[in-house]
Amino acid sequence: MAAMKPPLTHVNQAGEVHMVGVADKPATARTAIAAARVRMKKETLDRLVHATGPKGDVLATARVAGIQAAKRTSELIPLCHPTALTGAEIAMSFESPPGDEAGATVEIRATIHAFDRTGVEMEALVAASTAALTIYDMLKAIDRWMTITDVRLLEKSGGRSGHLRRADP
Amino acid sequence: MAAMKPPLTHVNQAGEVHMVGVADKPATARTAIAAARVRMKKETLDRLVHATGPKGDVLATARVAGIQAAKRTSELIPLCHPTALTGAEIAMSFESPPGDEAGATVEIRATIHAFDRTGVEMEALVAASTAALTIYDMLKAIDRWMTITDVRLLEKSGGRSGHLRRADP
Amino acid sequence: MAAMKPPLTHVNQAGEVHMVGVADKPATARTAIAAARVRMKKETLDRLVHATGPKGDVLATARVAGIQAAKRTSELIPLCHPTALTGAEIAMSFESPPGDEAGATVEIRATIHAFDRTGVEMEALVAASTAALTIYDMLKAIDRWMTITDVRLLEKSGGRSGHLRRADP
Amino acid sequence: MAAMKPPLTHVNQAGEVHMVGVADKPATARTAIAAARVRMKKETLDRLVHATGPKGDVLATARVAGIQAAKRTSELIPLCHPTALTGAEIAMSFESPPGDEAGATVEIRATIHAFDRTGVEMEALVAASTAALTIYDMLKAIDRWMTITDVRLLEKSGGRSGHLRRADP
Amino acid sequence: MAAMKPPLTHVNQAGEVHMVGVADKPATARTAIAAARVRMKKETLDRLVHATGPKGDVLATARVAGIQAAKRTSELIPLCHPTALTGAEIAMSFESPPGDEAGATVEIRATIHAFDRTGVEMEALVAASTAALTIYDMLKAIDRWMTITDVRLLEKSGGRSGHLRRADP
Amino acid sequence: MAAMKPPLTHVNQAGEVHMVGVADKPATARTAIAAARVRMKKETLDRLVHATGPKGDVLATARVAGIQAAKRTSELIPLCHPTALTGAEIAMSFESPPGDEAGATVEIRATIHAFDRTGVEMEALVAASTAALTIYDMLKAIDRWMTITDVRLLEKSGGRSGHLRRADP
Repeated sequence: MAAMKPPLTHVNQAGEVHMVGVADKPATARTAIAAARVRMKKETLDRLVHATGPKGDVLATARVAGIQAAKRTSELIPLCHPTALTGAEIAMSFESPPGDEAGATVEIRATIHAFDRTGVEMEALVAASTAALTIYDMLKAIDRWMTITDVRLLEKSGGRSGHLRRADP
Repeated sequence: MAAMKPPLTHVNQAGEVHMVGVADKPATARTAIAAARVRMKKETLDRLVHATGPKGDVLATARVAGIQAAKRTSELIPLCHPTALTGAEIAMSFESPPGDEAGATVEIRATIHAFDRTGVEMEALVAASTAALTIYDMLKAIDRWMTITDVRLLEKSGGRSGHLRRADP
Repeated sequence: MAAMKPPLTHVNQAGEVHMVGVADKPATARTAIAAARVRMKKETLDRLVHATGPKGDVLATARVAGIQAAKRTSELIPLCHPTALTGAEIAMSFESPPGDEAGATVEIRATIHAFDRTGVEMEALVAASTAALTIYDMLKAIDRWMTITDVRLLEKSGGRSGHLRRADP
Repeated sequence: MAAMKPPLTHVNQAGEVHMVGVADKPATARTAIAAARVRMKKETLDRLVHATGPKGDVLATARVAGIQAAKRTSELIPLCHPTALTGAEIAMSFESPPGDEAGATVEIRATIHAFDRTGVEMEALVAASTAALTIYDMLKAIDRWMTITDVRLLEKSGGRSGHLRRADP
Repeated sequence: MAAMKPPLTHVNQAGEVHMVGVADKPATARTAIAAARVRMKKETLDRLVHATGPKGDVLATARVAGIQAAKRTSELIPLCHPTALTGAEIAMSFESPPGDEAGATVEIRATIHAFDRTGVEMEALVAASTAALTIYDMLKAIDRWMTITDVRLLEKSGGRSGHLRRADP
Repeated sequence: MAAMKPPLTHVNQAGEVHMVGVADKPATARTAIAAARVRMKKETLDRLVHATGPKGDVLATARVAGIQAAKRTSELIPLCHPTALTGAEIAMSFESPPGDEAGATVEIRATIHAFDRTGVEMEALVAASTAALTIYDMLKAIDRWMTITDVRLLEKSGGRSGHLRRADP
């Protein structure tokens, strides 16, 4: 029965939210990897790949947007602690399965490093998600019904829980 | 062949990104509705619903996070225009199909209004997506492997393209 | 009985907050004047006034802080609409009643102008309040127990409610 | 005579402001507690309490606003150092003295923790003050002349000055 | 004699700054073009150009930084009005005069459009300047002593003063 | 030949930007001093100096703008790490060579301190540059064609490279 469980970390006995106290945790090296997928028409992906030829800025813009959003995670997610990021990178890959006109995808993978008292899952998820939204923004004029899916944590390390990987990446 | 197509709106002939000029468009009333889904374990949803009983702040926090993020869309998405929002609301609903321990979902729906020269799809998507990430943040201590899926535009109206609805909401 | 009253503007039937829709209101010229008072020791005020002699930056810093905060009101107050400010000024005055060692005051008055669909009371209150907090910050090393009081709206004009003045300024 | 006193910490010999150098101070655990009071009509408080029944978001919104503002203190208060907050919570209580139609109050208390080189008084004051302004915003349609008073530091600990409490909380 | 001149626009009779009132000006289409130059070693420019070959993100990153900074001008420049930008683009060109090892340059040109009551000179200057600083940041590990020069307005149009061009672009 | 050189620090083998990993560097005390110059008409400088007499806020506003921008460097410069500033000051000096009507200058010097894993050159350059732009903003109504020049690093210390000074300050 839910009522017997320990309360949610961000909520006190009265059901009120707060920013969890982490002063007692030691600062350690932290890493988190998260991913997101933008699902689009095959033709949309063709256009995106074409635009990323020599001098093409589209993917660079999404990468920069993801990195910048990671740095602002504690402004966006109300109960997140401000975190001293020590590194960030965003990688992208494409897939366009033959015969599936609506099933092309861009996969975005964000890796975030910090040296702090809390994990950086949220920073990685915000980075992947914002890069995906930025790709949507730049392509929406040609394909308004794209979907962002599978925004998820892949891996985290550092802190008490050690190195954890997703079973179904 | 992609090369024959009109270029992407946000990219010039040289492949360089820019913020599209919209000075010639008239300012009109705009609305966009977007949604996102957080997929979690049945038990996680039970805990969330329990925390949202009398005085429970969890969903309110996600709602506020979504509304605040909508207002900052042009800071997060590099080529978005700043937009004068005239209204914003975030609705949430829950589903927990019997027999599927991993298939409970929170569905978030963000409705954004503005009176401006550009559409507000991005504001609605950013709002839905940030509310979903905020729910993830508050529940991650009990269910780290939740997934955010189906971040998508449902509907938009105002501007040249008129009222459009998603075929597969 | 409270239950029979119209609901609060920012809350729907279900008790959920939202950013009120204002698209139907016409944009008009708006003004709001708000004030705040910092109550401090007589000696603290002497020091402040001394620091504001030729080339003294203390009051200028508070003035700038108030103006900049006014511009960010919709980021700070979750359900505020973003507003196109057209003018802002912060005035300060001092009072040090003889014989009352703890009753010296700095009075801050913020006047905010905009041309928009909503009033700018919050912008004026945020400006006055932030200027007061900035004065506290610069003086706290010599008087930690100062108090900020009487943060209040003095006057507003524009919009449906016309020109209104506080009865007890 | 003021001129003989040591200069204000934030001002140099020429009267110019600067962000005080704190590199030589050790980072230690810091706490500050500040409070603010919103004074309103008895009936306004009744409406607020009514709105905070089951599923009511009003107080949660104010709480979230206070926590988020605390994280942005160094952006709002020009000479504040950026600080690594390790915890934040906002508590509220109500008082409605019988027979005083204009003297109902909401008392907001913000507790801020950090591990850093400077105190977090400003973060606590900004949090309490912003939560109070947010309550004002949500109630202003029914009671425009509410006043925010007694924004004050209650307690601080950590750093050279040790644990200090206000004499008149 | 300076004392007889009209006061500076941003300063009142008492020498206090304020955000100038512009409510009486009509909103019109505005454009401003500003430029900045990064002066570097010939070899540094070679490396930059090399990095901007196929898939090179360096210039795209600077372009995005400039556009994003333009949108935040009123947060950076204390007395600037918030402005509704309707378009922004950043162009770059390179020069490497033979025989001058220290005299290679990147020239950045920012064009900003808005429909508002005030000019957008500051937005264009902030965009050009931030793009230049971003280039410096990405190259500083190989050439720490680069200089940013000639940050200047080239052209503006819209508003009372009409179309103006710099005599010495 | 450029291709044989080590890659730019902010760019990977594929030419993609990232935020460089610095987790392995020790946190140490860092200082950077940067400068910028605003070149203007002799008469403009006279007006500025006049405005900075008793109670004049113009230079204070520029100083505050520079300090506040330094704190936001990692938001403005996409690949900069967030940094824990421990001190900041901005000094200004004036020069008006006789006989050169167009050659008066304001020299701005920003000194930034931090205790962190990376240098603070960018923070110092952003501070100097933003203070210069703020001076431009406040004087532009009387001298639109001023130029900001010589934005440059003067000195840095802390970290692996030790204390370095510019050869041609």
